[in-house]
Parts: sequence; C-alpha cells; structure tokens
Amino acid sequence: MLSHMVNIRIFDTDMLGHCHHLAPAMWFEEARDAIFEIFNPEMSKEKWNLILVRLEMDYVGQIQFTERKIEIRTWVSKLGKSSIHVSHAAYLADGTCVARGGVAMVYFDFKNQRPQPIPEEIREKLIPHMDADCPYHLSGGK
Amino acid sequence: MLSHMVNIRIFDTDMLGHCHHLAPAMWFEEARDAIFEIFNPEMSKEKWNLILVRLEMDYVGQIQFTERKIEIRTWVSKLGKSSIHVSHAAYLADGTCVARGGVAMVYFDFKNQRPQPIPEEIREKLIPHMDADCPYHLSGGK
Amino acid sequence: MLSHMVNIRIFDTDMLGHCHHLAPAMWFEEARDAIFEIFNPEMSKEKWNLILVRLEMDYVGQIQFTERKIEIRTWVSKLGKSSIHVSHAAYLADGTCVARGGVAMVYFDFKNQRPQPIPEEIREKLIPHMDADCPYHLSGGK
Amino acid sequence: MLSHMVNIRIFDTDMLGHCHHLAPAMWFEEARDAIFEIFNPEMSKEKWNLILVRLEMDYVGQIQFTERKIEIRTWVSKLGKSSIHVSHAAYLADGTCVARGGVAMVYFDFKNQRPQPIPEEIREKLIPHMDADCPYHLSGGK
Repeated sequence: MLSHMVNIRIFDTDMLGHCHHLAPAMWFEEARDAIFEIFNPEMSKEKWNLILVRLEMDYVGQIQFTERKIEIRTWVSKLGKSSIHVSHAAYLADGTCVARGGVAMVYFDFKNQRPQPIPEEIREKLIPHMDADCPYHLSGGK
Repeated sequence: MLSHMVNIRIFDTDMLGHCHHLAPAMWFEEARDAIFEIFNPEMSKEKWNLILVRLEMDYVGQIQFTERKIEIRTWVSKLGKSSIHVSHAAYLADGTCVARGGVAMVYFDFKNQRPQPIPEEIREKLIPHMDADCPYHLSGGK
Repeated sequence: MLSHMVNIRIFDTDMLGHCHHLAPAMWFEEARDAIFEIFNPEMSKEKWNLILVRLEMDYVGQIQFTERKIEIRTWVSKLGKSSIHVSHAAYLADGTCVARGGVAMVYFDFKNQRPQPIPEEIREKLIPHMDADCPYHLSGGK
Repeated sequence: MLSHMVNIRIFDTDMLGHCHHLAPAMWFEEARDAIFEIFNPEMSKEKWNLILVRLEMDYVGQIQFTERKIEIRTWVSKLGKSSIHVSHAAYLADGTCVARGGVAMVYFDFKNQRPQPIPEEIREKLIPHMDADCPYHLSGGK
C-alpha cells in the first residue's frame, strides 16, 4: 500500500459546500504517479505506456474544505497479462474513509495503438503493492 | 433519451494529446442538468436534493480535440425508492461511441442529511427517459 | 465581435456558492476557439501556432449557477507583428457584464521554439474582430 | 515570502504537451491558503471574508510534467484599506521562474455584500510577507 497526502483546494469544492465528485478522481490520479513511475521511470509523455479504460468511484462521505488535507492510499488490486487495476481510498485525518474507487488501465503501445504484455521486471515491482487489505475492487470492466 | 452537445475545450486535453479521462465526466455532469431540473426546477443550491454516491465510466476510444463537439446522450437507467441511476454515452459526429458510464444518486435531504423517497410527480417525469436502448448499466453500487 | 454561449457547470462553482474565479477563464478559452481557427483551421495540435504569454481578468460581479448560460463576447484588442491580444467579456441574460479580461498570445513556431510574424492572410481575417466597443484592453505584458 | 510545493498533475497538462495556462492559477490558489488562514483561521466557508476581483499572470516558460514538482512563492504585494494584492511566482527545481502573477482581493462582508476595512490585527500578520524581493506587482485593477 502506498500513502500520499494531497491538499484540498477551493477549486475542488462546489456550490453545495463540499468537494465536487471529480475532486477525488483528481487526487487519485496524483496518487497514481507512484504506479506510473514503475511503468515509466522518466514519466515522459513520449514513453507513456498506460491507457485508462475504466473508472469507478464510491462516494462514502461528504468532504469539507476545512479538512484541508486528505490521505490517499493506493493499491494494485489486479494484475492481468496486459491490464492492471489500481485501487485508491481517501481518508480524513480521523481515519474515516470518504471515497474509494479504482481504475483499470492497459499497458499500451501508443505508437502502434495496441495493448502489450506487462514485462516481468515491471510485474515484480507492482506485486508488493497488492495487499489483502485493499478496500476496493472494480466491479465492472475488463 | 436526452441528447446534449458539448464543445471540447483545450482544457479537456492532456499531454498524451487526447482528452483527459475526467473530461467525459465533466460533460456527463453538464448533460445531467436535464435530470437535475426535473428534481429541482429552479436549480438553486438551497433546494438541491440529489447526492452523487457512485460514478462509473468505460473509455471506449480516444477523443481528439479536433472532433470539436461531442454528443452526450442521457438515460434514466434505474429508479429505486430513493435512488436513481443516470447513464450517459459520448458520441463522435460519425456515430462512434467513445465513452459510456453512469452515476448513482440519492434523493437527499441536505438539511437533515438523510435520503428521502422520490416523490411520485418526479418519478412520472423520469420514466419517459428510461429507454430499452440505454447502452450502459451500473455494475456496482447500491 | 464574436458571441458564444456557454453552459455553466456545477464543476464551475465553489463552496462560496458562486462560480470559481477560474470558470470565466475556461469559458474564455472556449470562446477563443473562433480565433484559434483563424490561425489553425484544422485545429490540430501538430499545427498549433499560438502560445499564451499573459492572462488578465477583472471580476465585476458574482456569477450564480442559476444563470445557467453565459454569453462570452470576444474581440481582437491588439495586433502586433507577432503578438495578438484577445479580449473577452461575460454577460448574463439581462446584459450585465460579470467578468472581462484578455490574453496576450504570440504566433509561435513550436518546433523551433520561437516567435514568428503573423502572416498577412491571417491578419486580414483578424482585423474585422477589432471593434471600438471592446470593453477591455490588457494593462500589462508585452 | 511564503514557499509551498505542489505536485504537477497529468490533469494540469494539455495537448500541446506542457501545462495548461490555468494550472499555475490553480497552484497559486493552493499557495494562497497561507494568506486565507490569516484572514480566516478556521478556513470555514461561513466565515469566508475575501473576494477575488482581479487576476493577472505572466507565462515566462513552458512547464513540463516531467518537472513533477513546482515551488510556489507567495508575497503580499500591496495592502490597501480594504484590499490586498497577493503575488505568486512558480519556480522549477533549478531555480528558473516559469510563471508569475497575482490577484487583487477585497476584504468582504458576504452577508451584506460590501467591502470592509481590513482589521489591524490581520494587517500585522500580513506585513511580514511584504518583501522587497517580490517579483510581480499587479499592473491593473483597483
């Protein structure tokens, strides 16, 4: 499990007074950088090799700006031949989980526009992030 | 089925050259206004009565800025006692579907912070948008 | 003067109940497409030839989601050898101006990373959008 | 001068491969929290007392996602009876400044919708952030 702190922004909030439903998706993407780095250590767009094919999110509680910071925990929740599920959950300072979800991504050759098998050396670095305590598994998608 | 056109913005794109995965979620929210209006004709924040509890999205194809416009089609895909599923799909000008997904929302009393049953007069206005051709049903959530 | 209508999104609002200060900047960018098309009719990223060097915005009034739609008017407010100022103003349905501002952009060769003179055939298409009624001129920048 | 680090997000980038022009404005807002806290220590929306009336930004260099982190420095650049200018600049790890700008805000009574004088106890906490090395002063606005 990977842990990453994000600051809540006023930009993240909406007229209902709480965080907009897309704010956790933005935070989850930032937390996913740790996974992206395993696939593409330079993080260059020229060598980008993952394409997002599915997004799921459960909103468990309302998130107020006054929380100021949110902890995002990240897990590898499934590892296929050429696909990976990455799950995330957002926690307040008191430990309350307020959102959880995940994405399915495909290891992708953008030049030839086709999936490719995830190499063994990458799989080895992903496996340590597959924990039994992962609180979310994707219910749909490939 | 409801149809709504949105303009793709440069803001919607990312460094991989296509639209970011959250762009369709923003467009779907804009398309959902037609549903929000059934629940809250004035669209005032003081009378807002829906809370989003789940989001799902399948990314079927990459969306280029050069498409310029996207058609978002919207359906009521499930109607529970106090919950509603709204499904959306995004189509290019040539009819290709590039993204589909949906949200689960709860008819919610924000003052007392609890779900409430969807009134009959609202249900009657939602039912015409439940079509057999709806291409997406939520696979998870309540 | 060019006129373009945008729908206000819930995403555009913030916890103070009105539209976030970056919402008009997103709308102005969408309205600027009409100018981008003069410079790059295909609107392809490969042929993109403008780089934004300055942004200015005056917030004249608060914008409520209940307005639903905003008219964005766009002018060419200055035309230099290789630079252009584009001004925008946002109007409510009752004609009230709620935000005005502009951007300075440079006609730019991204491959060689340098400014280039705006060609005469482009200038001719820009000049009709330089109107005396333009309500905003940039106060700083090149 | 206040210093704050932000992570660049994929969401911040656009199809031209670099960060979108609104990304620095989002980062500057996050950095401004240190100023907001002086005005409203609880950071609650009910006690919010600043309204943004002007935004200016100079884009000095292109920002690549591969930079990963950006340092945002923040200054109080002008202190009026009821208004404040806050300036920001964004720096790469090698010390290069890539964007600078600022906002004008008014100390505002949202209930009665009118400006109010900034209290002495708040002014005292702002003055230490008015440094001679501030690299940006607003060229327009009140």
